[in-house]
Amino acid sequence: MSDDPTVAALQQRLSAFAAARSWQPFHTPKNLAAALSVEAGELLEIFQWLTPEQAGAVMDDPQTAHRVRDEVADVLAYLLQFCTVLGVDPLVELAAKIDRNEVRFPVE
Amino acid sequence: MSDDPTVAALQQRLSAFAAARSWQPFHTPKNLAAALSVEAGELLEIFQWLTPEQAGAVMDDPQTAHRVRDEVADVLAYLLQFCTVLGVDPLVELAAKIDRNEVRFPVE
Amino acid sequence: MSDDPTVAALQQRLSAFAAARSWQPFHTPKNLAAALSVEAGELLEIFQWLTPEQAGAVMDDPQTAHRVRDEVADVLAYLLQFCTVLGVDPLVELAAKIDRNEVRFPVE
Amino acid sequence: MSDDPTVAALQQRLSAFAAARSWQPFHTPKNLAAALSVEAGELLEIFQWLTPEQAGAVMDDPQTAHRVRDEVADVLAYLLQFCTVLGVDPLVELAAKIDRNEVRFPVE
Repeated sequence: MSDDPTVAALQQRLSAFAAARSWQPFHTPKNLAAALSVEAGELLEIFQWLTPEQAGAVMDDPQTAHRVRDEVADVLAYLLQFCTVLGVDPLVELAAKIDRNEVRFPVE
Repeated sequence: MSDDPTVAALQQRLSAFAAARSWQPFHTPKNLAAALSVEAGELLEIFQWLTPEQAGAVMDDPQTAHRVRDEVADVLAYLLQFCTVLGVDPLVELAAKIDRNEVRFPVE
Repeated sequence: MSDDPTVAALQQRLSAFAAARSWQPFHTPKNLAAALSVEAGELLEIFQWLTPEQAGAVMDDPQTAHRVRDEVADVLAYLLQFCTVLGVDPLVELAAKIDRNEVRFPVE
Repeated sequence: MSDDPTVAALQQRLSAFAAARSWQPFHTPKNLAAALSVEAGELLEIFQWLTPEQAGAVMDDPQTAHRVRDEVADVLAYLLQFCTVLGVDPLVELAAKIDRNEVRFPVE
């Protein structure tokens, strides 16, 4: 995974993309939170009528697999843009949340 | 940002966390997509009654800022677990999506 | 409004529609709750990039107005089917909720 | 069901409730669409980790049944307020949508 783009690099690409198209006025925190929720709904839509078994096999069909990957990208895009606009570091926040959850849900 | 946890490391921590608590049977793709959508809704809830101006100042209040960070962590946690279960690399997918969008929305 | 179809009549039409197409196995409470959430996201999508002013004028454009009406119908359809499957009377529940809220949020 | 409150009567109660508390400025179409989506997420949350079997038995537990009824009321409340603000008749729209779907999905 060492050649993966980093989250910071993706955030910079997304910011440059929006700036080049003068889309920043639309990218308010409220609008980006709404867009994130809308895209999460589009990802859920793929699964809404599937049995658990069908849902588990969703990547076997190339067209559905493409749709899943595309919606994952959209969700991540809006999450990262939301974080950029508000100055939140999503990786640090998730690490801190896992730390808290290890205390909250101890393993016997 | 060089000391940030990586996405791959967070995915491993989340997998270990779920395995230690025997939560994997619940972490089907369909359930994780539903949970992602639910958490995105909880993030949006913070903003639902705010004017654009109030929404832009949401990090000035420590309690609201904590809530925003906590919901960002939850959204990212379910997105990463969804990707782990289905073998999707979210960073690669987002980079590919930005590539496609650069063709789809050319800058004059 | 006296010639409006009633909620009970619409629930019966929706049940007959699903039965005639053998769709009932898909109409589990969990799937219908997911579909309701997905359709609410599609309604929100219409508004996600609009200013409050633009959002208020959304019915002035015939195409957007049609889209709003169509998504309202979809949200109501899944809400009513969910209620039918679980034996919940949505009108009675809303009246009871308003009663509770009148106590919870007293007018000075 | 003849003693059920009507949708029109509930819309009037909701409008009077909001007016008495000076909440109308918050009840823009965009905010109400966001709130509807948030509440639909809260309804889905009840089901997110349940198997189809557990989800089907959700009304057997009095506490969960109350939560389901409460979230149904919230979803309907925001849907009706959204419709009031934009002048959409949800019952007429759903009847029209079923008409269209009968053409779109013919029974053999």
